[in-house]
Amino acid sequence: MTPYVYDFDEPSEGGRALLGGKGVGLAEMTHLGVPVPAGFTITTDACRAFMRAGGLPDGLEEEVAAHIARLEERTGKRFGDPDDPLLVSVRSGAAVSMPGMMDTILNVGLNDEAVRGLARSTGNEEFARDCYRRLIQMFGETVDGISHDRFAPDDTVERAREVYVAETGREFPQDAREQLRRAIVAVFESWNSPRAQVYRHTYEIPDDMGTAVNVVQMVFGNKGDTSATGVAFTRDPSTGEQGLYGEYLVNAQGEDVVAGIRTPQPMEEMRARLPDAYAQLLETMARLEQHYRDVQDIEFTVEEGKLFLLQTRSAKRTAAAALKAAVDMTGEGLITREDAVARIDPSQLDQLLHPMLDPDAEFEVAARGLNASPGAASGKIVLDADTAAERGKAGEAVILVRWETTPDDIHGLIQSRGVLTAHGGMTSHAAVVARGMGKPCVAGCEGLHIDLETKTVHIGEHELHEGDAITLDGGTGRVIVGEVALVPPSINEDFETILGWADGLRRLQVWANADNAEDAAKAREFGAQGIGLCRTEHMFFGDDRLPVVQEMILASDEAGRREALERLLPFQQSDFEGIFEAMAGLPVVIRLLDPPLHEFLPPLEDARDERMRSRIKALTEANPMLGTRGCRLGIQWPEIYEMQVRAIARAMKAVNRGAQVEIMHPLVGFAEELRRLRELTETVMREEAPELEFLCGTMIELPRAALCADEIAEHADFFSFGTNDLTQTTLGMSRDDAEGKFLTFYLEDGVIERNPFETLDQDGVGAIMRIAVERGRSTKESIQLGICGEHGGDPKSVEFCHGLGLDYVSCSPYRVPVARLAAAQAVLRAGGRAEYVVAGG
Amino acid sequence: MTPYVYDFDEPSEGGRALLGGKGVGLAEMTHLGVPVPAGFTITTDACRAFMRAGGLPDGLEEEVAAHIARLEERTGKRFGDPDDPLLVSVRSGAAVSMPGMMDTILNVGLNDEAVRGLARSTGNEEFARDCYRRLIQMFGETVDGISHDRFAPDDTVERAREVYVAETGREFPQDAREQLRRAIVAVFESWNSPRAQVYRHTYEIPDDMGTAVNVVQMVFGNKGDTSATGVAFTRDPSTGEQGLYGEYLVNAQGEDVVAGIRTPQPMEEMRARLPDAYAQLLETMARLEQHYRDVQDIEFTVEEGKLFLLQTRSAKRTAAAALKAAVDMTGEGLITREDAVARIDPSQLDQLLHPMLDPDAEFEVAARGLNASPGAASGKIVLDADTAAERGKAGEAVILVRWETTPDDIHGLIQSRGVLTAHGGMTSHAAVVARGMGKPCVAGCEGLHIDLETKTVHIGEHELHEGDAITLDGGTGRVIVGEVALVPPSINEDFETILGWADGLRRLQVWANADNAEDAAKAREFGAQGIGLCRTEHMFFGDDRLPVVQEMILASDEAGRREALERLLPFQQSDFEGIFEAMAGLPVVIRLLDPPLHEFLPPLEDARDERMRSRIKALTEANPMLGTRGCRLGIQWPEIYEMQVRAIARAMKAVNRGAQVEIMHPLVGFAEELRRLRELTETVMREEAPELEFLCGTMIELPRAALCADEIAEHADFFSFGTNDLTQTTLGMSRDDAEGKFLTFYLEDGVIERNPFETLDQDGVGAIMRIAVERGRSTKESIQLGICGEHGGDPKSVEFCHGLGLDYVSCSPYRVPVARLAAAQAVLRAGGRAEYVVAGG
Repeated sequence: MTPYVYDFDEPSEGGRALLGGKGVGLAEMTHLGVPVPAGFTITTDACRAFMRAGGLPDGLEEEVAAHIARLEERTGKRFGDPDDPLLVSVRSGAAVSMPGMMDTILNVGLNDEAVRGLARSTGNEEFARDCYRRLIQMFGETVDGISHDRFAPDDTVERAREVYVAETGREFPQDAREQLRRAIVAVFESWNSPRAQVYRHTYEIPDDMGTAVNVVQMVFGNKGDTSATGVAFTRDPSTGEQGLYGEYLVNAQGEDVVAGIRTPQPMEEMRARLPDAYAQLLETMARLEQHYRDVQDIEFTVEEGKLFLLQTRSAKRTAAAALKAAVDMTGEGLITREDAVARIDPSQLDQLLHPMLDPDAEFEVAARGLNASPGAASGKIVLDADTAAERGKAGEAVILVRWETTPDDIHGLIQSRGVLTAHGGMTSHAAVVARGMGKPCVAGCEGLHIDLETKTVHIGEHELHEGDAITLDGGTGRVIVGEVALVPPSINEDFETILGWADGLRRLQVWANADNAEDAAKAREFGAQGIGLCRTEHMFFGDDRLPVVQEMILASDEAGRREALERLLPFQQSDFEGIFEAMAGLPVVIRLLDPPLHEFLPPLEDARDERMRSRIKALTEANPMLGTRGCRLGIQWPEIYEMQVRAIARAMKAVNRGAQVEIMHPLVGFAEELRRLRELTETVMREEAPELEFLCGTMIELPRAALCADEIAEHADFFSFGTNDLTQTTLGMSRDDAEGKFLTFYLEDGVIERNPFETLDQDGVGAIMRIAVERGRSTKESIQLGICGEHGGDPKSVEFCHGLGLDYVSCSPYRVPVARLAAAQAVLRAGGRAEYVVAGG
Repeated sequence: MTPYVYDFDEPSEGGRALLGGKGVGLAEMTHLGVPVPAGFTITTDACRAFMRAGGLPDGLEEEVAAHIARLEERTGKRFGDPDDPLLVSVRSGAAVSMPGMMDTILNVGLNDEAVRGLARSTGNEEFARDCYRRLIQMFGETVDGISHDRFAPDDTVERAREVYVAETGREFPQDAREQLRRAIVAVFESWNSPRAQVYRHTYEIPDDMGTAVNVVQMVFGNKGDTSATGVAFTRDPSTGEQGLYGEYLVNAQGEDVVAGIRTPQPMEEMRARLPDAYAQLLETMARLEQHYRDVQDIEFTVEEGKLFLLQTRSAKRTAAAALKAAVDMTGEGLITREDAVARIDPSQLDQLLHPMLDPDAEFEVAARGLNASPGAASGKIVLDADTAAERGKAGEAVILVRWETTPDDIHGLIQSRGVLTAHGGMTSHAAVVARGMGKPCVAGCEGLHIDLETKTVHIGEHELHEGDAITLDGGTGRVIVGEVALVPPSINEDFETILGWADGLRRLQVWANADNAEDAAKAREFGAQGIGLCRTEHMFFGDDRLPVVQEMILASDEAGRREALERLLPFQQSDFEGIFEAMAGLPVVIRLLDPPLHEFLPPLEDARDERMRSRIKALTEANPMLGTRGCRLGIQWPEIYEMQVRAIARAMKAVNRGAQVEIMHPLVGFAEELRRLRELTETVMREEAPELEFLCGTMIELPRAALCADEIAEHADFFSFGTNDLTQTTLGMSRDDAEGKFLTFYLEDGVIERNPFETLDQDGVGAIMRIAVERGRSTKESIQLGICGEHGGDPKSVEFCHGLGLDYVSCSPYRVPVARLAAAQAVLRAGGRAEYVVAGG
């Protein structure tokens, strides 16, 4: 039978999936000769067996006992020995890093007698009592579910034990083996805690992966002034700058750093205070980075001057740091360009494109904290995670303001624009999570005081209340009262370098959705190779246009409509000219009028006369999404599309650098619709500009269009998948009516895994896209295929489109870099040259 | 080269498609030795060549000239001869009978000189001048497009010619060959007249079929008192009774009978007046029926005592007549049972199931006319076809009231509930069309007077206005002022006989959609073998229930909802008991709650308090069709479905004869939805009635469900295609917003051929159903498959479902007979044992 337990120095072939990230790291470090405490790993297999059986699997306890015996042999101490006890930590470690989500218990093996033995053997009673107090508290919280609030860091052992007895009705367990067994069970059980489930859900980590458990001999950073504990990175996780970066605390255990209860010291101070340990740490970390060929995030402890590494893992980092590190490491010859491209999380790039404070804005800084996660955001103060989650979901911009955050706050963090904490450092929970999510965080802000009872907040001199607006600048740690104007950030050289490498790898073109010249210019700046969706209806709004559009809609006959359309034509023409100029000859896909006409009329109560009132009534629809819109407008009132085509033709003639135009008819369901509209398009183009070339095609946004793509392709030069509407029709789900309502319930309750409006529903919408591609190509092998729904900027969806063999994806300008990178990674993964990038790492 | 022209006695292999119905009939009658005037047929090939070329095809005129020469030879008269001219009729004749839709011109060959020759040679100047007057009028109307109103039946030749000159600016053509050529062109052109297009569209006749042209030597029913013309049937086309049935007019030409200008005499009078011709007609018609093995509709002329048959065709008949004739002819050994089943038009059966006047209703008959088409209807008087079409489309019940109808009125007839005319007989346009459409017609109502100017109508003593209600009883010819209660008709023995034969042939089961015990009983009466859709939401309405439902919706928590549901349970249980009793152990598919909850709340302005108002607002949806409904309700608020399942279980236990229940979850899109709901269903059933068996399945009404049918089938015992919603989602078309709006435009403008909500869209919705069937069966070979959308009662859709291999179709109780017959015909057609039945004939 395959063993459930492996010593760190025992060879195993299971790797990360079996031993978890922490276990693999400890085993590898042991193998590399890095100073690591002795210990062993209980595999994820054991966890899965536990989940199936609802209890520890047969044989596991015996295996654990055997490995404890080995540990006793090696350390010369005995587990449960009242005189000089072997103490261990019990730590979870899943294959994917889930910081703060799983539970750790230190000092397992202490009891009322052994604490005295420990005091004797170390000659340090305070230390021994501190260890026991920590064990009782951690064990009580983690194993017995006692609320964190019941304990305090300055409790005595006696006080902690009283709380334990009061809360559980039992004495604290004195048997070391019972402590160990219950700790292992608690780690396994914590895999299915609500907060772990939310985290997995957010980062799309499979529920059946399970966690490993590491049982490690204790080393003590809390043995006095020559002891310390810390967290360090091989490069700065915020900027990617080379060189040791981190924080440590003297006379502390690891949890003190992570929990943000004491504000830690920068590493520079350790160099002075513990020079030997520091030098050894520096050398060891360089070795680890070289070995793993990636930025490492290390936990270490110095016990009476002696260094131990407790963990190493790939460091979570900001997008900017990820880019810089990848570019630098490529320059250092550590990794290839493909590696560099493969290891950037495309969805994280987004944070580089987040707004920053407008440099011209005037504001007063109310307080400062740590610049824990870059970017800027404004929003209303909210003081608890539940409210933040609720209001954020409802679309409000909120900033979560807390003393410190815990994993229980994860749902509130997800829905906030940013987070501000009074306690904790750069590696505190709030900071780590915010960086992973690419949202601003200011941590450890001493000028912040919160009164939960009165819902009042003091920031520096200001007294504010829940609901008042503040602005965070996570890049500098500034906190500002009120809203501040934001500007989009500029893109740095590393960004351009990586995207340049990505462009060399990808097959998919990346186009952008842009409705005007400014967006088109922005799109090109971000590297768009064309415009995949130019919505013309936006040109129907505007003070000078809307009244004319309304006249057109209210006209009683075709002549009246034509007269109004005649006046709209110059507006459209000049809009098109601007876009064509901006795109300088790159392809531009123009979608003719799509929304139902009632969108251009005021609400019924604002109608200015009886005629308008009756027209509004006549145009009111039960389900406007499925009503008279898209090409149904152009079929019934061809004069509208005629005007639009005419404006396109005239704009094409007017611009200097030429325009490569693709005219797109929306919402086609029947081949006959497109046949007619193509005829209309060609007739008008012939009249206006017989010499100009253009393409004519359709969106595929109805299931019927996909199913009949072979017939429709006879009249189409291109298909563009309108996956927003295709998702709505294929799933029978109106986005407006689903999000925040049953769809949110479905996501939270696990009925479905991902929001199909964000990440393409591959089994449903993807399946019907595949049908459309096959049938369309069966008629016209060379038909151009693209996607212009919002999914075009979602990395997973981009990869699907690559696999489907589309020619391009089109997304919002700000998503273009994301799509460029995702398209390159799709090539690498399809060729087995890369794995999925773990979110935020 | 294949000839374009065939003499009636010339053999041709083209048959009906080439020669048209009339041409084939004339050739076959000639072959059988039936007295038929000499002549020839210009083929539909020539018509198609004409339509392609936009003019007469090369060689056609020469062929016509050669056949005219042969006709001259045979008759001893010369075409254009001023002394004793050969006269011909030019008549259209398509492969499918299109009564009154195409144009006929009589007496071609007459001119100013020849009319005098004809007068001399017949010794009958009045007759000769009557013939010439008719030619000028018909030619003027048909070839030159002069309005019918410009001529009057009592015009003189001179007056007719004056009108012709005034309207066309030209003299009436004197060259017989020019007359013939232009007449042929006019027939070809009339194929594409708007009224012909509307007719073809209504009866789904292909546009490229084309018409043949028959050129026939004139025989004259207007040569005095021993001449006559008439229309006769071998059996009564209203009842199917055996024996000659028809009408004739002495001293008249055929158009006089059909146009309804003179009210014709019954055939009985002809027996007395023209006994020899009558006897010969009787014998000839018997021979023709024997030959064609079907009821024949014959046009005949008696010229100075000598009988000629001008046409024979299968008679259009009422559904009752079709059934009786088919049963009788099977009894007579003329046809087989399969023939009998094959030749009933299933959609026509519907008319047997139309409402009749309530026998207990008290009313006064205002006037009487001919009982021209059976059934009864009430509606508002409308005096012109355009208004009738408009109001009918808008959903108003209208009765078209006219002096007489013409083919130009066809769009108004289609949209009326019934038609009342002052003139015309059983074979008048109004009567023939109404019978074909299965709607009531009272024709030749002498008590009817119409004043179009004042929009006033006199019916007997009553003065009415447009918009006033009347009731027609087409079965008896009674006209009643106001509305009269109607009852559904009972089913006769012939009906049962044919359906019994159909049941012996079909493979598909026919189930019905029924929501209560009454409908269930009705469904069984019509032969339903189960209930395919029992909608439970109807049980949520009703004065005693709705307030409780509203309480449930307004409840602030689950406990409140459960409390209200508890009170609803007995209502649902007793409803289910009633249905189970009615179905006596046949399968009943119960669909759990489907509509969005706001349907149970009043409109916002009627909310009784703030709480209700805010709940209504919260439940308001942009696209309710795609919102929180179907199983999305059951997933979010499982207590609702729990109550429903509990009510089903208790009802199953309560009934004596057992209940075969299938619990259906609506709007499933994800396998996980059905997995959860199946678990819920099984849990409740186990609690309530562990001993009872039931099936659990889902509707397939979302494209995603079809695409993921393999996964969904893992949790489903059955699929039922909800093709109403599946059509809405696949086509992206809200029925409410499409019909009467763009969909009506699409149908009229020929963008699509059929209303996809009436006849299944096989290319789109059918294609996705096929995917669902294949994928569902790939997981569960034995999965039960049915359809419960309205298409389940549409013959074409039933045939598609047969081809798809479904187990049953389910439709409204009144459509069950239609579906039973259609299912049998599907078997016959799939085996090549039957062709499509031509609509109405």
